[in-house]
Amino acid sequence: MFPEYDVIVVGAGHAGCEAAAAAATMGSSVLLITMNMHTIAQMSCNPAMGGVAKGQIVREIDALGGQSGIVSDKTMIQFRMLNLSKGPAMWSPRCQSDRMLFAQEWRNILENNPNVDFWQDTAKGILIEDGKACGVKTSLGIEIKSRSVVLTNGTFLNGLIHIGEKNFGGGRTGEKAATGITEQLVSLGFESGRMKTGTPPRVDGRSLDYSKMEEQPGDENPSKFSYTDTKSLVKQRSCWITYTNSEVHEILRTGFEKSPMFSGRIKGIGPRYCPSVEDKINRFADKDRHQIFVEPEGWDTVEVYVNGFSTSLPEDVQYAALRKIPGFENAKMFRPGYAIEYDYFPPTQLKSTLETHRIKNLFFAGQINGTTGYEEAACQGLMAGINAHRNVNNLSPFVLKRSEAYIGVLIDDLINKGTEEPYRMFTSRAEYRTLLRQDNADIRLTAKGFEIGLADEQRLLNVQKKQKDVGEIIASFSITKLTPEEINADLELLGTAPIREKCTLTQLLRRPQISIDQLAEANPKVAELLENYGSDAIHQAEIHVKYDSYIEKEMQLVEKMNRLEDLMIIENFNYDVVSSLSFEGREKLKRTRPATIGQASRISGVSQSDISVLMLFIGR
Amino acid sequence: MFPEYDVIVVGAGHAGCEAAAAAATMGSSVLLITMNMHTIAQMSCNPAMGGVAKGQIVREIDALGGQSGIVSDKTMIQFRMLNLSKGPAMWSPRCQSDRMLFAQEWRNILENNPNVDFWQDTAKGILIEDGKACGVKTSLGIEIKSRSVVLTNGTFLNGLIHIGEKNFGGGRTGEKAATGITEQLVSLGFESGRMKTGTPPRVDGRSLDYSKMEEQPGDENPSKFSYTDTKSLVKQRSCWITYTNSEVHEILRTGFEKSPMFSGRIKGIGPRYCPSVEDKINRFADKDRHQIFVEPEGWDTVEVYVNGFSTSLPEDVQYAALRKIPGFENAKMFRPGYAIEYDYFPPTQLKSTLETHRIKNLFFAGQINGTTGYEEAACQGLMAGINAHRNVNNLSPFVLKRSEAYIGVLIDDLINKGTEEPYRMFTSRAEYRTLLRQDNADIRLTAKGFEIGLADEQRLLNVQKKQKDVGEIIASFSITKLTPEEINADLELLGTAPIREKCTLTQLLRRPQISIDQLAEANPKVAELLENYGSDAIHQAEIHVKYDSYIEKEMQLVEKMNRLEDLMIIENFNYDVVSSLSFEGREKLKRTRPATIGQASRISGVSQSDISVLMLFIGR
Repeated sequence: MFPEYDVIVVGAGHAGCEAAAAAATMGSSVLLITMNMHTIAQMSCNPAMGGVAKGQIVREIDALGGQSGIVSDKTMIQFRMLNLSKGPAMWSPRCQSDRMLFAQEWRNILENNPNVDFWQDTAKGILIEDGKACGVKTSLGIEIKSRSVVLTNGTFLNGLIHIGEKNFGGGRTGEKAATGITEQLVSLGFESGRMKTGTPPRVDGRSLDYSKMEEQPGDENPSKFSYTDTKSLVKQRSCWITYTNSEVHEILRTGFEKSPMFSGRIKGIGPRYCPSVEDKINRFADKDRHQIFVEPEGWDTVEVYVNGFSTSLPEDVQYAALRKIPGFENAKMFRPGYAIEYDYFPPTQLKSTLETHRIKNLFFAGQINGTTGYEEAACQGLMAGINAHRNVNNLSPFVLKRSEAYIGVLIDDLINKGTEEPYRMFTSRAEYRTLLRQDNADIRLTAKGFEIGLADEQRLLNVQKKQKDVGEIIASFSITKLTPEEINADLELLGTAPIREKCTLTQLLRRPQISIDQLAEANPKVAELLENYGSDAIHQAEIHVKYDSYIEKEMQLVEKMNRLEDLMIIENFNYDVVSSLSFEGREKLKRTRPATIGQASRISGVSQSDISVLMLFIGR
Repeated sequence: MFPEYDVIVVGAGHAGCEAAAAAATMGSSVLLITMNMHTIAQMSCNPAMGGVAKGQIVREIDALGGQSGIVSDKTMIQFRMLNLSKGPAMWSPRCQSDRMLFAQEWRNILENNPNVDFWQDTAKGILIEDGKACGVKTSLGIEIKSRSVVLTNGTFLNGLIHIGEKNFGGGRTGEKAATGITEQLVSLGFESGRMKTGTPPRVDGRSLDYSKMEEQPGDENPSKFSYTDTKSLVKQRSCWITYTNSEVHEILRTGFEKSPMFSGRIKGIGPRYCPSVEDKINRFADKDRHQIFVEPEGWDTVEVYVNGFSTSLPEDVQYAALRKIPGFENAKMFRPGYAIEYDYFPPTQLKSTLETHRIKNLFFAGQINGTTGYEEAACQGLMAGINAHRNVNNLSPFVLKRSEAYIGVLIDDLINKGTEEPYRMFTSRAEYRTLLRQDNADIRLTAKGFEIGLADEQRLLNVQKKQKDVGEIIASFSITKLTPEEINADLELLGTAPIREKCTLTQLLRRPQISIDQLAEANPKVAELLENYGSDAIHQAEIHVKYDSYIEKEMQLVEKMNRLEDLMIIENFNYDVVSSLSFEGREKLKRTRPATIGQASRISGVSQSDISVLMLFIGR
C-alpha cells in the first residue's frame, strides 16, 4: 500500500514539521504521520515564537534553510526585539503569532513540498530488523517501511492530563494519547522517564478590562526572523501586562491540597523556568505579586492566552483566583489550565546526529528528548531531518559545534549531560554567546545549509553579498578620518568628548555613546559612504567595530577548544583497554560514546585526568 | 464558576452552531460546550453545502436569519444551481466549500456574538430536577446550570469507528467518542438506537491525473445562498468526474469477507441514499460502473475528497481499488475511509419544537435525531435554538408547517413517522414542493424570522421590497400588450408560433419556449418596463406568471389541509376517554402526542376513521 520511504516522521508538531520539510527539501521521500491532519503544527502552549536564546535558535533554523522563521514571519501579529538595552549577544527576536494561521502556513508549506506524503494514523511501534529501524507500525495495523524513522511524539506518549484531583489520558486537551512506542523501546533496553509540563487557562478577551492593564505594543520598527524576503509587520496587536496579588495567591493556596503537583500524583518533573503559578507562590512565598502577560491568540479571535498563569489546580480554584487579577474581574474561561505528564527518553542515549545509539536509523527530536519549547523542538527536528536524510544516503553526520550555533550547544548538552527536567535554552548555556548572535546566524550557518542541500542558492548569494558589504564598510571605516571641525559639534550633542585631531570612523564608532546611524546622520561623508549598503550589513559592521575585542577573544577560545573537538574517537572505541581511566569515567564514556575528545570532556563524571589519559592513548 | 445560562448547547457542529447563534441572537445567554475549540464547525464528511432539497433548506435557514447560508457564501470555492433543466421547484443551489475557512468563519461569527460563551469540555450527563433539564454535567465533573439544554452530539455518542476487521472508539477519526449521555437518557426511559454512517478516503491531489477525468466547473454566473449582500464568486475551483469499473469492483469484492457491513459487526443502519461503494456494487451487481466526484477541499490545499467512494473495507483493499480508477493510478491516500456507528434517539420522542416529551427544557437536534446531512442538522439546530430561547421566555412554540418550509416537512416527518435509517431530505418528501422553492424562501419565511427576533430589519425590508416589485411586474405584464409586428420576428427566432393579434406579456411569458430575459432582450418596451427592478424580483415574477396554475392548485390544497392543522389538541389530552379509537391508533397517539389533528393524521398507524372520531370528539 505504501512505497518504502526514505524517512518516516512521526508527529507533526514543530519538530516533526521541520524534520519532514528538511529531509524532503534535501531530496528524501518523506512520510509524515500525524494523528489528525487538522492539528498539524498546533502551538500547544502560548501563541509566540522566539524570545531570549530561543529567538536566536529560530534565526539559526532559518539560516540553515529551515521553515520556522518563515512561518513565524508570515503569521505574526506582533514583533519585539528583546534586550535591546544590553549588548548585541543578548538581543533576542520574539513574536506573537496567530495560532490558526501558524498551523495553516506550516501545512501549506508541507503540502507544497513534492517529497512530503501524509498519513493520518497513530504510530504504535517501530519496525526493527537486525537492530535497525526500518519502518513504523500504526494503530490501524499497517506496516510502513522506511530507511530512517524520526520520532517527534511531543507530550503524546502515555500522556496523562491533570486538573486538580482529576486525571485522564490525552496528548493535549481534547486529543488522545499515544501508547505502544514507549513500551516497545523500553523492552529493547531504552531507558525512559516521565516529565511534566503545563498550560494556563484560555479566556474570553471580550470579558477582560484592558483599562486596568499596561499595554505592551510591538516594536515601532518591527524586524522579523527570516533572512529571506518575508515582510515585516505594518499593523500589530498589543499584549497586556497585569499582576497577581495576595488575594489571588490566597485563593490559589486553597487548592493546594487538591493539587496534583503537591500531592505527589504527578511524578514527572516540570520545566524549572516555566513554573506553574502555584509553584511560584509556593517557592517564592515572599513575593506578593507575579507578572501576567495577556496574549491575544490571533488577529481576529477573542481567545486570549494568560501567560504566567499555568496551573493544574482544580478549575474552580483557577477561576476564582483568575477573577481577582486586575482586569480579570469578569473573566470567562474557555478551558482550564492543566498539567500533562508524558514519557521521554534521557537524551544521553543519542548520538550528536540525534540518532539513537541502540537502534540504527532511529532518530528522536523534541520533547521526547526531554526538552521544552517550540524552538528547541524545531531545531532538533531540523537536525534530525537533515541527519536522517544523510543517513539514508550514507553521508557523514551533520553536526554543529557549540561555537557555531545554539543548536550545537543544545544537542551537545543533551547528549552529554542529559537532562532530568525539561531542558530550555538560555544564553547562559552558551560559552561563546558573543559569537552566537541573532544578527549573524546567516553568516555562521547559511553556507553550511547550502552545502548540504537545504538552504537555496539565493540565501547563499544574500549572505555572501552581506559579508562582502560588511568587509567593505569595516575597511572604509578604518581608513576614513574626520577632523575635529567635521564632527565635534555632533559629538557634543551626543554627550561624548570632542576630538583634538583627526580620528578614524572606527575610533569614533567604538565609543559606546555613538551608533552608526547617529554617525551617518551627523556627517555627510559617513552617510555617503554607507548609502549603497543595506541596513543589515551596516549594523553587522557596527557590531564588529564595537565588539571587535570581545569577538576576537572568544574566537581564540574557540580555536583552542576546537583542537579537542577535532580529535575524533572512533565509534566503537574500546574503553576497557585504557586501563588508567577512572571507573566512573569509563562507565560514562561507554554509555555516552562521545565522537570527539571535546565532547568527552563535557560528559559529567569524566574528569580532566580521564581526558589526559584518553588524549595520550589516542595520540599513540 | 459559571452563571446560570439561558441555553446550553452541547456540540459545535452544524446543528450546535446554528442553535447557539439563533438563541444568542434572539437574546438568550448561551454556553456552547465543545470537546475541542479547534474543531468547531468541522465538515466531517464532504466539503460541500446544499444540493437537491438540501440547498432549499440552506436558503430557508438563511431566510429565517440563520447563518449557514452566509458562512457557505463566504467560504465557497464553487457554486452550481442544480436541476436548472427542470421546473423551478427542483432548482437546487449547491456549493463546494473550503473546509478550513468554513470552520473559521463559523467560529468568527460565534465569537462575535456577545451572548455566546464557550467551554471546552465533554458533556457527560444532563442535570435534571422535577423532570426538567436544568443544566449539564461535564467530564471535568463540573455542573453548569441552564434553563434549556440543546443536545447536538452528532456521531460522538458511543461512536465506534470501523475499518475492515478493526474497530475503535471515536467520534470522528482522530477524535474521542462521548459516553454517559445515552446511558443516562436510557435509564430515564428514553428509547435509543444505533445508526451508521461512513466517509471515503482522502487523497493527495498532487497524485491524481486530472487529464483522465471530466472537468466539472462551477456555474458561469454563480449565484449564492444568502438573501443578504454576501458576494458571489469571481474565481472558482473545478471538481472532476471519473468512474469506478469492473476491475475496481473486483478488488473491492476481495475485501467483502472482512467488511464490517457484511459480516454483521456493524449493527447500525446506514444512509440509504449515501451508500458505501461496497454497498453499491453489492446491491447493483449489474451496474459496471459508479460515478466518482473528485472534490477539492479548499482553495489551496492538495487534500481531495473522493465523493462516491465511502467505504469501511480494509484500508489496503480501499487503496488497491482506488488505484484502478481512471486518474487515480498513482493516488496517495491521506487517510482511509471508515464507517462509524453511533447512538441516536428515535425522534418520535420529540415535540414539534424538538423538545423531548419526556424531559422538559431538553432539546435534540441533528444526527442524535436520526438524520444525516449538514443541512438537515443545521435547520434542526436553528429550530431547537429558537425554541429553546422561546421556552426560556415562556413564548409559544415556533413551528413551521409542511406547507411553509422543507424544515417543517423534516421535523413533521421525524416526530410523526420517526426514522429507522438516517433521514435525508428529498424534494419528494414535500407534498407542496411547488411552493417550497429556493427562490422564495425569503418570501415564505423572513417575516416570521423577523417577528421572533432572529432575522434583522434589513432582511425584512429587502423581502418587502422584493414582494412589492414582483407584484408590480406581474400587474404590468398582465396589462401590457405587444402587437404581432412588435414581437413575431423574435418569436420565430425562439421557435414558437407567431401571434395574430395583440397579446399581453403574461400570455407570451406563459409559453415554455420564452424566458423573461429573452422577452426583455427582444423587445425594448419589456426592457424598459423591467429596467428598474432587481434580477431577483424579475425572476420571481417570471416563475409566478409561468407556474401560476400549479402554485394556485397547491395553495388550495394547503388551505384545505391547514383546516386540520389549525385544530389543536391540548397537550395532555386523554385519549383513553375516546372509546371508539382503534387500539393501535390510541397507542400511537399517546406516544406521539400530536399538537394538531393535521399532525395526528400523519402518524403511521392512525387511521382515517381514528381522525374522524377525534375530530368529532374535539368538535364537541
